[in-house]
Amino acid sequence: MPATHLDTTFAALADPTRRAILARLTGGEATVKELAEPFAMTLPAVSKHLKVLEHAGLIARGRDAQWRPCRLEVGPLKEAAEWIGGYRKFWEESFERLDEYLQALQKTMHDGKNS
Amino acid sequence: MPATHLDTTFAALADPTRRAILARLTGGEATVKELAEPFAMTLPAVSKHLKVLEHAGLIARGRDAQWRPCRLEVGPLKEAAEWIGGYRKFWEESFERLDEYLQALQKTMHDGKNS
Repeated sequence: MPATHLDTTFAALADPTRRAILARLTGGEATVKELAEPFAMTLPAVSKHLKVLEHAGLIARGRDAQWRPCRLEVGPLKEAAEWIGGYRKFWEESFERLDEYLQALQKTMHDGKNS
Repeated sequence: MPATHLDTTFAALADPTRRAILARLTGGEATVKELAEPFAMTLPAVSKHLKVLEHAGLIARGRDAQWRPCRLEVGPLKEAAEWIGGYRKFWEESFERLDEYLQALQKTMHDGKNS
């Protein structure tokens, strides 16, 4: 079910620590310990975030029982981008309208100054 | 704080009913009653979802006390798209690698057939 994918993807992304972990993994694989370092968090707290990311398919973990390095998996991000992309024309339209409004406002002020 | 915006935006999007409400509003303003119709939900349940969407700035509501029609607000979707867009090159790379792999596989099978 794509709906379920989007549910878990968006829920996983709704946390600044989890987004920071994904950002860190764009630089390459990292262990839990390496991921925990920049945050003022315990290893179990980071592990909990990693479980949410893994469940959402946003990271995958190596099989090495001791280290289990994490790596970024971008498939769910692509899906989420496609869903949001369906609304692109609406924000493009709304910014065009704002632009037209500001141009009209500027013209009114300019005409007012010169009258 | 953009981080906080993204938190509430992604949390609001992590529900199929709320995503369906946003999709419905692309067709224009609607009242709570109109929004409730396609779902097997009570008006209070729909109202609860609308509060989450309104808190995230994804919808705005009219001032008419009786009807308070809802309309789509796309600003937070644009922000979310920009955040996810930062990962675009990673999924493009990963699909390129898959494509190269499949081409190599096809060549191996083709060469095997002809040897």
